[in-house]
Amino acid sequence: MVKQKNENYAVIGLGQFGSAICQSLVQANQQVLAVDIDEERVNEFTNIVTRAVIADAQDEDTMKELEIGSFDHVFISIGQNIQASIMATLLTKELGAKDVICKAENESHARVLEKIGADQIVRPERDMARRIVFHQLQPNIVNYLMLNDQVTMAEVKVDNPEFVGKSLNELSVRNKYHINVIAINTDGKVNLSPDANDKLKLNDLISVVGYTTDVNQFNGDAQLS
Amino acid sequence: MVKQKNENYAVIGLGQFGSAICQSLVQANQQVLAVDIDEERVNEFTNIVTRAVIADAQDEDTMKELEIGSFDHVFISIGQNIQASIMATLLTKELGAKDVICKAENESHARVLEKIGADQIVRPERDMARRIVFHQLQPNIVNYLMLNDQVTMAEVKVDNPEFVGKSLNELSVRNKYHINVIAINTDGKVNLSPDANDKLKLNDLISVVGYTTDVNQFNGDAQLS
Amino acid sequence: MVKQKNENYAVIGLGQFGSAICQSLVQANQQVLAVDIDEERVNEFTNIVTRAVIADAQDEDTMKELEIGSFDHVFISIGQNIQASIMATLLTKELGAKDVICKAENESHARVLEKIGADQIVRPERDMARRIVFHQLQPNIVNYLMLNDQVTMAEVKVDNPEFVGKSLNELSVRNKYHINVIAINTDGKVNLSPDANDKLKLNDLISVVGYTTDVNQFNGDAQLS
Amino acid sequence: MVKQKNENYAVIGLGQFGSAICQSLVQANQQVLAVDIDEERVNEFTNIVTRAVIADAQDEDTMKELEIGSFDHVFISIGQNIQASIMATLLTKELGAKDVICKAENESHARVLEKIGADQIVRPERDMARRIVFHQLQPNIVNYLMLNDQVTMAEVKVDNPEFVGKSLNELSVRNKYHINVIAINTDGKVNLSPDANDKLKLNDLISVVGYTTDVNQFNGDAQLS
Amino acid sequence: MVKQKNENYAVIGLGQFGSAICQSLVQANQQVLAVDIDEERVNEFTNIVTRAVIADAQDEDTMKELEIGSFDHVFISIGQNIQASIMATLLTKELGAKDVICKAENESHARVLEKIGADQIVRPERDMARRIVFHQLQPNIVNYLMLNDQVTMAEVKVDNPEFVGKSLNELSVRNKYHINVIAINTDGKVNLSPDANDKLKLNDLISVVGYTTDVNQFNGDAQLS
Amino acid sequence: MVKQKNENYAVIGLGQFGSAICQSLVQANQQVLAVDIDEERVNEFTNIVTRAVIADAQDEDTMKELEIGSFDHVFISIGQNIQASIMATLLTKELGAKDVICKAENESHARVLEKIGADQIVRPERDMARRIVFHQLQPNIVNYLMLNDQVTMAEVKVDNPEFVGKSLNELSVRNKYHINVIAINTDGKVNLSPDANDKLKLNDLISVVGYTTDVNQFNGDAQLS
Amino acid sequence: MVKQKNENYAVIGLGQFGSAICQSLVQANQQVLAVDIDEERVNEFTNIVTRAVIADAQDEDTMKELEIGSFDHVFISIGQNIQASIMATLLTKELGAKDVICKAENESHARVLEKIGADQIVRPERDMARRIVFHQLQPNIVNYLMLNDQVTMAEVKVDNPEFVGKSLNELSVRNKYHINVIAINTDGKVNLSPDANDKLKLNDLISVVGYTTDVNQFNGDAQLS
Amino acid sequence: MVKQKNENYAVIGLGQFGSAICQSLVQANQQVLAVDIDEERVNEFTNIVTRAVIADAQDEDTMKELEIGSFDHVFISIGQNIQASIMATLLTKELGAKDVICKAENESHARVLEKIGADQIVRPERDMARRIVFHQLQPNIVNYLMLNDQVTMAEVKVDNPEFVGKSLNELSVRNKYHINVIAINTDGKVNLSPDANDKLKLNDLISVVGYTTDVNQFNGDAQLS
Repeated sequence: MVKQKNENYAVIGLGQFGSAICQSLVQANQQVLAVDIDEERVNEFTNIVTRAVIADAQDEDTMKELEIGSFDHVFISIGQNIQASIMATLLTKELGAKDVICKAENESHARVLEKIGADQIVRPERDMARRIVFHQLQPNIVNYLMLNDQVTMAEVKVDNPEFVGKSLNELSVRNKYHINVIAINTDGKVNLSPDANDKLKLNDLISVVGYTTDVNQFNGDAQLS
Repeated sequence: MVKQKNENYAVIGLGQFGSAICQSLVQANQQVLAVDIDEERVNEFTNIVTRAVIADAQDEDTMKELEIGSFDHVFISIGQNIQASIMATLLTKELGAKDVICKAENESHARVLEKIGADQIVRPERDMARRIVFHQLQPNIVNYLMLNDQVTMAEVKVDNPEFVGKSLNELSVRNKYHINVIAINTDGKVNLSPDANDKLKLNDLISVVGYTTDVNQFNGDAQLS
Repeated sequence: MVKQKNENYAVIGLGQFGSAICQSLVQANQQVLAVDIDEERVNEFTNIVTRAVIADAQDEDTMKELEIGSFDHVFISIGQNIQASIMATLLTKELGAKDVICKAENESHARVLEKIGADQIVRPERDMARRIVFHQLQPNIVNYLMLNDQVTMAEVKVDNPEFVGKSLNELSVRNKYHINVIAINTDGKVNLSPDANDKLKLNDLISVVGYTTDVNQFNGDAQLS
Repeated sequence: MVKQKNENYAVIGLGQFGSAICQSLVQANQQVLAVDIDEERVNEFTNIVTRAVIADAQDEDTMKELEIGSFDHVFISIGQNIQASIMATLLTKELGAKDVICKAENESHARVLEKIGADQIVRPERDMARRIVFHQLQPNIVNYLMLNDQVTMAEVKVDNPEFVGKSLNELSVRNKYHINVIAINTDGKVNLSPDANDKLKLNDLISVVGYTTDVNQFNGDAQLS
Repeated sequence: MVKQKNENYAVIGLGQFGSAICQSLVQANQQVLAVDIDEERVNEFTNIVTRAVIADAQDEDTMKELEIGSFDHVFISIGQNIQASIMATLLTKELGAKDVICKAENESHARVLEKIGADQIVRPERDMARRIVFHQLQPNIVNYLMLNDQVTMAEVKVDNPEFVGKSLNELSVRNKYHINVIAINTDGKVNLSPDANDKLKLNDLISVVGYTTDVNQFNGDAQLS
Repeated sequence: MVKQKNENYAVIGLGQFGSAICQSLVQANQQVLAVDIDEERVNEFTNIVTRAVIADAQDEDTMKELEIGSFDHVFISIGQNIQASIMATLLTKELGAKDVICKAENESHARVLEKIGADQIVRPERDMARRIVFHQLQPNIVNYLMLNDQVTMAEVKVDNPEFVGKSLNELSVRNKYHINVIAINTDGKVNLSPDANDKLKLNDLISVVGYTTDVNQFNGDAQLS
Repeated sequence: MVKQKNENYAVIGLGQFGSAICQSLVQANQQVLAVDIDEERVNEFTNIVTRAVIADAQDEDTMKELEIGSFDHVFISIGQNIQASIMATLLTKELGAKDVICKAENESHARVLEKIGADQIVRPERDMARRIVFHQLQPNIVNYLMLNDQVTMAEVKVDNPEFVGKSLNELSVRNKYHINVIAINTDGKVNLSPDANDKLKLNDLISVVGYTTDVNQFNGDAQLS
Repeated sequence: MVKQKNENYAVIGLGQFGSAICQSLVQANQQVLAVDIDEERVNEFTNIVTRAVIADAQDEDTMKELEIGSFDHVFISIGQNIQASIMATLLTKELGAKDVICKAENESHARVLEKIGADQIVRPERDMARRIVFHQLQPNIVNYLMLNDQVTMAEVKVDNPEFVGKSLNELSVRNKYHINVIAINTDGKVNLSPDANDKLKLNDLISVVGYTTDVNQFNGDAQLS
């Protein structure tokens, strides 16, 4: 990345999700303080993060000593102990942390976190489940972005034999589907200036943008019925 | 969706992730069999899914009775009990299930699942952590897709005052950054045919496509230094 | 009481404190719904309160069925389970309860309860400890009220032999201590119009009002040195 | 306080109530020995009290070493372990302690403590519940003291508009209610010599003394019907 | 027995000792109510005692229903739960039982039981250990009774060859040891009128009475050195 | 005692019974090795017995090191862990101990201990229960010994007013009851040569010997009907 | 089998080993009573054995009801609960069972079982470990029998190229190794009358009998050095 | 053994079976590394095997340090923790171990182990149960080997009186049963060249080889009907 930030992160709670956050941050060369109440978990991170500390995030004195309020971002990724998650968030905000990102276990937990001042609330299991189900249901849409509630950009795989060997023109992409073709990925090579006369190949990934209903229509036709 | 599939799903293991999978599938109007060994968890799904069953997924007779081999897709989302996850996967494949998607707790677990025949292996905590860290590090990139390992499509937020009030032409987007502007989202309204003379506004979301280094360069300039 | 209220109360959590609240309310002829997650505890109240229900106060559907939002006052006296206390309070407020009185275990707990909307927060152990210690340290002050931060009304026991047999006049109560004598309790009989010439007896309880320092001065002199 | 005592206290049992007793005593500058069988709890008091000791209060040799019989006052605030509470009380009395104050969990516990010689028995949850319920039922009575079983002193809040702007004379306080007005608190300032012609303001707190039925009558009229 | 009593017994607590009490009472044809909080234990006595009841002996209502105050004798043989033993004893006495026999676990327990009114306190393990150790140390004394602190009756086994074949006269029992010979048991046959000229046989059991030091002297001589 | 033995004892298992055995042996000035697997229990005996050792009595090497085979007497007083009791007994006998006294929990346990070679088997709870029940049923018989299955020696308390003031002659003790009067204990003083004309006093303890039916007859008459 | 027995078996304890015993007996068409204290385990055998019963094998009444003494053979395969194994064995023998086969966990356990009358004692883990290690160390010896402590029959695999293509005569089997060749298994076909001139093939299994040292010599030569 | 191998073994998991494997290997003078996660178990092997290590076999770094891939043979004898067994097997194979022998708890476990690359899978309880049941059912067949699925070698005990005193010729062994007699064991002495005229004695063990049905026929006749 050209102008990537270099900031201080604290990650409180080193379960499945907190561990993964630590690893991603370290791979992005960030400064990371990893905190957990469980000695064994902390030990696993001693040689990985900038600093790994065994501490109870509900204890005000300990959090002060760690100067938790001075970090640029604090992840509260305490797992199943909802009380600890709430108390740690309260304390972290009261100690002045500007950006506190909390993992919520459920809807009620999220509402409490919001009321006591969490800056961002994430629900990774729910969000990832949604992504996986989407892919399961639309296997031809390899990737997609919702630009607003009506416009979608999608990367669609071609496996309908009737599309193979046809050009975008022949398929009347513009006229019939009212979508723009942004790029065509053939065997991993991306053509950013697709020509209307280029012939599609089996398994080409076509990046298109347009109204969601149009994109879905195109996707439906491009896939094997 | 226009041509959405309508298939039979079994979800084995109703922890955080399995629950979220069930809910997403139900919202997408799919047939869902929810299975867990814990009565309390199953009861929560009785009125939500097509069928909810208390069963031990390691028991061959029970799995046969449920005709687990006949489902189009089977999610093995058994959480912390790695043994149960492995045994259930083995059994489900041996009973003939064509598409078995397993949640792995760690790298070793994933390797075992692969060797015993799992069709897809997902690691939601790790993957979601990566996405969240990416957004944390590149807060101006609201959304992005990697089209291949060199080409990225990104939705970039404009908050550099020097960009505000300038047209794409004035910013030499094409010449300086070698990227295509696909869409401009102003206050939730998406312009799919952006004109080179349109003036950018503060907080506009510009969807661009190009080589990753170019996209990052543009993103870096568009954000507040 | 002449115009005592007659209202609906819900008491959620039947530990030591919640049980005592229920009993006090029942003795005052109030309508009481008693709720706890523990069957055994609920059974003890079946014949005492208006209605006793086994329920999980963290479950939204259950709380809705109990129409918890419609009660005039709701006590959340959930003991050591701080998470349950927080979730029940959140839910109760969201369901519209106008007056929610919560028992807090500690300072942090109290702060969270306040942020999520608790109307009153009580800390019985701390408050009772303060009262008991006060009496221990000032054993002659049988009762007291702080009218503001400078004025105190106190019921002082006379056990200094030098006070016994003296009248208020002889003791120069007005001149020396600048306090008003409101009442004198002799062996349980209260004289509401104490005369300046009445002689004090050993163990009389004198109700006085005045500046706190003056009251303390009088108390110090009235007790056995 | 002018002539406050300075004595030695032992507090055995550092749960919610015992902890609060310690803190109140320390704030009153008393010498405090804090004892608990749980190391973690004792550690929290090391820097707060005069001496904090991990000890089993049921062990005679340990109690002798601590010279528990020589303290001016001993609090037995052992919580849920009724056996330990009884044994510690027995031992403390046998070792010669003059003033042993015990927390009882219930009526039977209290009776046993009395029979084995406890000097004072307190039941904080029950007593505090009674106070809170009283205030709940008589919200206009901000504070009160029972001088005997017939005479009450109460601090009553005025929120009946018909009282506002009227003098004590106009309200015939003396004639109608047969009560004495001791003080009037207006916005935190206390007038200790209320004049019969002073006009009452909304939310004034009037301290009155008289027969309980009369005080209640006045309170009932002073509050919003 | 000729005039044996026939009374009502309650045995509360069916551990090792309480069970044995029940069995002995039943063998003596007494009416027995057996009470324990543990269902399994109670079931073992259903067909043995007059009535067997699962009940918590600390619950006043239950004890009233069982009319525990009306029994001639109540054994409180609650084992390791000292609190339950104390509470049950308190309750049983308060309900009017005239003769309450309690098993104490240790010295402190015994003192508490005494203070709350137990009529008899037994310590079977300690007492039986004393008996067994006595026999171990004085193996020739098969049985003994202390008539007061100086006089003992003992049944002494003869295994000193120098005693065998000698008459009481020859051994100068009266003159040398100052003891009375009450009976001589030869092979299970008891001679209640021992003649001074009867010859002792090996392993005869001689019942003697006298001052303890004399009896010990005789015992010492009668045994194999 | 005149010729008391002085021997080496090992006591394995320091529960209620084993502890009492140790204390009785120590009071009798015997050498005692106390063994238990529980550190806390062993510590309580460090300053009491000759040697106290934390050890697993089921471990052959440990038992060899302790030279358990060389003790004069070994008590196996392991409480509820029947397996440990059996294994320790087996091992102790195999290591050559001559006199192994085992506490059995029940009849089956006793049979196993007998088959694997235990020299003495004791069942203290059962035996003590029998003694206590006997005294309960025959409260006038303060003490008794069965000399064989037909002859009993008993210490009988006189509380029948018709006996008081009468001599043995007048009561025809010899003629009517066919029993011998051995001693009469009046207020703690024992008359070992009771005269036929001595008058009995209320509460005298008369030691008699005779056939059991005769003794019971006498006892029945001597007590208050 | 031609004249196979048909007898009644009881298998007490349905762990790994007991389960396997049941299955082997059922496959051999024997009558089997399966007993375990654990309901779940018993349920697994309900449809497999003649009768499956949930019972505590330490309970005499239950064992009598099952007429355990009348079975031809009783397996006591109670796993880790050594006490239960001992008690069940004692009981089973006392009830008259003629052939009681017990699984022992270790040497001491075996000795106790022997003393209380077990007819056969097996130690499957130890024995199977020995067999497996033997095969591991002598991989060419596919099977073997010790006819006495000097004579062995072994089935040896030929993988030494120098043996391949040679006849028994050429290898001087008789002269050099002094062993008899009983059979030669070539690709699963067994020649029971091997001719001295038959040529050996690679991987032939030669069954030989002779003194153990000779057999080992032959085996050593036949295998790849 | 003449040319016994001398190799390096690792035994992971020191339960009943793993312990027995270690002991058998040590008796055969092999180099053994013993590994278990439980300190107590490892300590028991410190003085027995070449090296004993406390380690978690699921931890890749630890297994690398132990160079588990370099051992000639690795036993995975982890008992009831199926997950640990699977993970350790996966790791051991991935680290390059050539011969990994795993104990499987059940059929499913065995299938997973096979799929992840275990070289040998053993099921000692099942196999030993089969052997024991076979001997139980055919008590005259002291030993046997299946040479293929039709040919058996068996050691048969003679206890039919009609066989005693008869020669092999007289019994027409060859003609009637078509079996070869390999050896006759009389009182522990083995005759490897049995003569057709030798007379059989009671309890002789005759080693025969032939078709299984023939061997069974002979065995049936040789035993007491």
